[in-house]
Amino acid sequence: MIVTEVEIGGTKRGRIAYSFDDIALVPTRRTRNPEDVSTNWKIDAYDFSFPIMAAPMDSVVSPDVAINYGKLGGLAVLDLEGLWTRYEDPQSEFKKIANAKSNSAVELLQQIYSAPIKPELIKERIKQIKSAGVIAAASLSPRAVVKHFKSVVEAGIDIFVIRGSTVSAEHVSTGDEPLNLKKFIYELDVPVIVGGCASHQAGLHLMRTGAAGVLVGFGGGAAHTTADVLGVRVPMATAVADVAAARREYLDESEGRYVHVIADGSVGKSGDISKAIAMGADAVMVGSALARSNSAPGGGKHWGSEAVHKDLPRGQVVELGVAGTLEQILFGPSTNAEGTLNLVGALKQAMATTGYSDLKELQRIEVVVNSVKS
Amino acid sequence: MIVTEVEIGGTKRGRIAYSFDDIALVPTRRTRNPEDVSTNWKIDAYDFSFPIMAAPMDSVVSPDVAINYGKLGGLAVLDLEGLWTRYEDPQSEFKKIANAKSNSAVELLQQIYSAPIKPELIKERIKQIKSAGVIAAASLSPRAVVKHFKSVVEAGIDIFVIRGSTVSAEHVSTGDEPLNLKKFIYELDVPVIVGGCASHQAGLHLMRTGAAGVLVGFGGGAAHTTADVLGVRVPMATAVADVAAARREYLDESEGRYVHVIADGSVGKSGDISKAIAMGADAVMVGSALARSNSAPGGGKHWGSEAVHKDLPRGQVVELGVAGTLEQILFGPSTNAEGTLNLVGALKQAMATTGYSDLKELQRIEVVVNSVKS
Amino acid sequence: MIVTEVEIGGTKRGRIAYSFDDIALVPTRRTRNPEDVSTNWKIDAYDFSFPIMAAPMDSVVSPDVAINYGKLGGLAVLDLEGLWTRYEDPQSEFKKIANAKSNSAVELLQQIYSAPIKPELIKERIKQIKSAGVIAAASLSPRAVVKHFKSVVEAGIDIFVIRGSTVSAEHVSTGDEPLNLKKFIYELDVPVIVGGCASHQAGLHLMRTGAAGVLVGFGGGAAHTTADVLGVRVPMATAVADVAAARREYLDESEGRYVHVIADGSVGKSGDISKAIAMGADAVMVGSALARSNSAPGGGKHWGSEAVHKDLPRGQVVELGVAGTLEQILFGPSTNAEGTLNLVGALKQAMATTGYSDLKELQRIEVVVNSVKS
Amino acid sequence: MIVTEVEIGGTKRGRIAYSFDDIALVPTRRTRNPEDVSTNWKIDAYDFSFPIMAAPMDSVVSPDVAINYGKLGGLAVLDLEGLWTRYEDPQSEFKKIANAKSNSAVELLQQIYSAPIKPELIKERIKQIKSAGVIAAASLSPRAVVKHFKSVVEAGIDIFVIRGSTVSAEHVSTGDEPLNLKKFIYELDVPVIVGGCASHQAGLHLMRTGAAGVLVGFGGGAAHTTADVLGVRVPMATAVADVAAARREYLDESEGRYVHVIADGSVGKSGDISKAIAMGADAVMVGSALARSNSAPGGGKHWGSEAVHKDLPRGQVVELGVAGTLEQILFGPSTNAEGTLNLVGALKQAMATTGYSDLKELQRIEVVVNSVKS
Repeated sequence: MIVTEVEIGGTKRGRIAYSFDDIALVPTRRTRNPEDVSTNWKIDAYDFSFPIMAAPMDSVVSPDVAINYGKLGGLAVLDLEGLWTRYEDPQSEFKKIANAKSNSAVELLQQIYSAPIKPELIKERIKQIKSAGVIAAASLSPRAVVKHFKSVVEAGIDIFVIRGSTVSAEHVSTGDEPLNLKKFIYELDVPVIVGGCASHQAGLHLMRTGAAGVLVGFGGGAAHTTADVLGVRVPMATAVADVAAARREYLDESEGRYVHVIADGSVGKSGDISKAIAMGADAVMVGSALARSNSAPGGGKHWGSEAVHKDLPRGQVVELGVAGTLEQILFGPSTNAEGTLNLVGALKQAMATTGYSDLKELQRIEVVVNSVKS
Repeated sequence: MIVTEVEIGGTKRGRIAYSFDDIALVPTRRTRNPEDVSTNWKIDAYDFSFPIMAAPMDSVVSPDVAINYGKLGGLAVLDLEGLWTRYEDPQSEFKKIANAKSNSAVELLQQIYSAPIKPELIKERIKQIKSAGVIAAASLSPRAVVKHFKSVVEAGIDIFVIRGSTVSAEHVSTGDEPLNLKKFIYELDVPVIVGGCASHQAGLHLMRTGAAGVLVGFGGGAAHTTADVLGVRVPMATAVADVAAARREYLDESEGRYVHVIADGSVGKSGDISKAIAMGADAVMVGSALARSNSAPGGGKHWGSEAVHKDLPRGQVVELGVAGTLEQILFGPSTNAEGTLNLVGALKQAMATTGYSDLKELQRIEVVVNSVKS
Repeated sequence: MIVTEVEIGGTKRGRIAYSFDDIALVPTRRTRNPEDVSTNWKIDAYDFSFPIMAAPMDSVVSPDVAINYGKLGGLAVLDLEGLWTRYEDPQSEFKKIANAKSNSAVELLQQIYSAPIKPELIKERIKQIKSAGVIAAASLSPRAVVKHFKSVVEAGIDIFVIRGSTVSAEHVSTGDEPLNLKKFIYELDVPVIVGGCASHQAGLHLMRTGAAGVLVGFGGGAAHTTADVLGVRVPMATAVADVAAARREYLDESEGRYVHVIADGSVGKSGDISKAIAMGADAVMVGSALARSNSAPGGGKHWGSEAVHKDLPRGQVVELGVAGTLEQILFGPSTNAEGTLNLVGALKQAMATTGYSDLKELQRIEVVVNSVKS
Repeated sequence: MIVTEVEIGGTKRGRIAYSFDDIALVPTRRTRNPEDVSTNWKIDAYDFSFPIMAAPMDSVVSPDVAINYGKLGGLAVLDLEGLWTRYEDPQSEFKKIANAKSNSAVELLQQIYSAPIKPELIKERIKQIKSAGVIAAASLSPRAVVKHFKSVVEAGIDIFVIRGSTVSAEHVSTGDEPLNLKKFIYELDVPVIVGGCASHQAGLHLMRTGAAGVLVGFGGGAAHTTADVLGVRVPMATAVADVAAARREYLDESEGRYVHVIADGSVGKSGDISKAIAMGADAVMVGSALARSNSAPGGGKHWGSEAVHKDLPRGQVVELGVAGTLEQILFGPSTNAEGTLNLVGALKQAMATTGYSDLKELQRIEVVVNSVKS
């Protein structure tokens, strides 16, 4: 028997939705050696050796981090509305944030991020990454796309990310003409990854825009605060599985276009990566785990774009500390059992323990739902 | 499949009931600009620019706060059994409470509130609010209504609130004649908001009294302590949805009289406001969030009428601190992510993110029920 | 739809069981004045003005407390295997326990309680209570009954309590002849209250012994520790409702003998009393709440008979502190909102709020089951 | 009605799985004396007076502990990949670990355990145990079996344990020839206990290898950290019940070969032992409870083999402290109510309270599933 919906009261019903913490992978009868599993991920024409994107957050990705991350085999996304496009040299701003007290940090962000975005810096940052020979990816919010996308394209971006806390294919506006995502993506010559979304329907609509990938979730580590402030929450296990089902529907209606589903939010520990893929994700977007690298621009502090909103911030500046080098965070060796080091090795071990040899296979794994005390 | 009831033991069954913390709004495929949504609320002949009533609690509403709140576009309710009608100038009493230690605060309240209510002060306070040109609302408990309602009406009250932790249309008493709500409201010439109630049946009976609005819940922030002391609890998401369903039944039986459903209790953060409306509420009553304003009479302390009960207090004096001006609490800018500032902005953002343009539409939104770990 | 059982794994199923914390009373459409409700309780030939028994624990009931409690209208039970029957004057032993450090307290109990029980003290204590003109109740464990019951009866006990953590009508023993409860109770000339039990079947069997009342639960505040030590747990809401259903079955098979169901365990706050009765209990046994009286022999410390077991203690010595006089704990005034003062007043208020006028009626009230976050 | 599966999202379903904390034994209508119950356990030709194996962990079992444990009537398993086979005299290594700070402890383990295993020490340790006249049991991981099993057999081992966090009968490897468990066990002349496994299917396959016993679970106290690192979790109540059901299937297909099911993981308190048996286990493997003995080699610290992994540790070094002698931990007297002392006495008391006289009977007991707040 399958329980999907409950009666809350009156005529109001609600579907029960699950987070990554609610589920777990279960070993079955087969096991493998970790050396025998593959974590390769390919989107559009680009190959990566692991399916972990670095999130477009100032505390995670600088141009230097993007280059280093690319050389290690991954895909990092630079936030084009962050400090690197507002300041020629943002180091002193980063330092102020690193030194801010937690109760005044959001106010400081609001002030620092009020500086205008400079188009020439958008170009400069992208070119810097490209010139290092790695695949360049960068992001704009839907509202900033119309104004800045030309700079992005002119700079030769490889993968364009349009990312907001909720991005819909059907934005209704009475004032300025809203971004027509379908037309925009069609006319653009680079692959686009777009999101976040949280439901089958929203995911399907984003797939129909022609996007190469769809982000599922809110991103930015603001799940809890968004629930407090807006009353909105996206339980990730359910959301990823829903959008993965939309991928199947879209595969059928498009006669074979495979749109990647990328979990963007609540992927904090290495165990969350295997859970996201078990729910049907092709890749994940990681923020906090990478913000702990000794080369992360936040210097151990972590914040998302929700935290810099001028009158309704939905995120905070969190003190994470430094865990190791970027390489150690990705490939180990780990020296603790917290799921913060050796993300790729942990994914391989999870696949080996459960007997799956590649990511597409791992999407089929059975999972259990934790009971109350588990 | 819908789960509504469980077998507790023997022949005893219980319905599963949900609080606001159990549910969340989910973005769907459409989004809007926050500038394009309306939070207007109209009850009887009165228009307000947001659906957030200020609760009749001494720590929240003074005559001055009521005036200021009205000028900001909202409806504040003055408690006519509070300090403002017991003392000509209650400032020194407020100071004593502000300085009280938490373990002796309830005893102090019991003593301070033992002073008698002065009918002339009832009139004076209401007239003071009216003379400032704002809509005047004030409350009495069911037991005090018979004794004091004439003073209230003579003073020219605009909206009369009858509020107790549980108010029923059918109060049984062997001693004094109980208040006949239906007769009383019928004969009164001002709109009445009455409650709290917690079920379809109780809500329906209150609607039949002729009330313009029905309060759902216990109010006063005493949800937890009432459960400890009485074993009684009102999970708000379920209660609001139940009474909203009663509104539909009453609409049909009355051939079109629309009674407003007002969530009164457990609305502590801005996210709870959008959740209450998602459950079918037309408006909410807010206490603690407004008690944090720098003009709140409690000076950062917060208590409800349950806390002053002479031999069975069911509430406490809580230290909330000061968050900002009343205007900032309502309209921002917010400088944190806790859901305590910019209540109206957060409601607008929630509507924009989920694609609804007015409050009546937002009542239709789908919600998810959180699983254990969410 | 009713959920009663889940599949744990393989062929193993488990019924979901509920504690008092899982449930709550809900106000319905009627209310009453607290002055108009009755908390009278009558068992066998004895009338009490409230349905709250004082538990046979050394930290709760001394002969003096029993007398005082009886004069206040209640029924206190003296533990005949406690310090009052092992020591002529146990005051110095009580002092040692009061001064013991928590990590060595159980060892101290084991030593102090190793002193033998003196039959003459059994008689003396009971006579002391009787001579004060109150109804005398006292308890023995099943194992001690055969040895000591004659002293108890000779002393003129009014109500005899046989209490162990689990008492069954069918005790299997290869060594000494086990107590034949049915024969014993039949031959005894005083009403017997016996327990604990935790299921319909066990309750029914105890009712068939001829007992006047059946204790449901483990008593003694050791719910959590018993789960840790033995893996055994009795969720009280389910257990009381189950045994109340057994009462109905037994009423039918006995053609009308009404056996009282007494909740003995997890009744810590005043709210738990109304919940227990809502589940079908006729009365409750209270320990910790009464151990907080300034006349309690434990002086603010609290322990049960499980804690004194010589090689497998399942309880602890807990520091509760002093809350007020015995009278204040029962009848108020309360000066806090924790459910520890004015137990009888809280029960009356719960009945008034929900519209029930006597205890038998309150057993019919509908309850809600809390969801996860409530 | 039985709830077994929920819809997580899209087409993804998950079975609800239960841990020991989720369940509890319930007393029924019969009780016994603790003296009248038997905890005897027999596997293959070997008899033990209690069904509690000491886990092959360096913090739990040394050769001396194994001898002492055997003399007390139990079966201890020595880890042949631990310090005793890497160092002639590992005392100084144990001291280093005992003195390590918690944040650097895992790194220290990684270094200390990098010393090679010496085959001659394998033989020496086993012979030492055998020569004391007790039944000798020792463990190797699947990867080490091929290399070292000859030393183990030559030394005259009585019971051979093959233990990894997940052991499958069907290990797939592209490099070295994996261990063919069925062939290996068939050719070996000693009874083999093998695991961990977590499902009916995996358990059944391990039973078909000819093993005398199957370990269920991950062992090693790393349940939580494995979930964080790998996303993998094995809720033990469900896993044990599943594998116990596999035992029935295998009994039928093998026409009567009874394979013992041994719960290996999350058995931390005495109450967990009775719960594991209630789920169908024949015996349990205990680590942390025994690591608290004053003769435990870890000196109050506790770690498992997952914690020493060279680049992906999934466990920690935990400070447990010392609770008493090995004899006191097994047989009492206990001086606290935490479930850490008198493990065998607690099991007997649980059986007595619930009326079961031997372990096989106890497997049939009904259990309840805790609700949210229990």
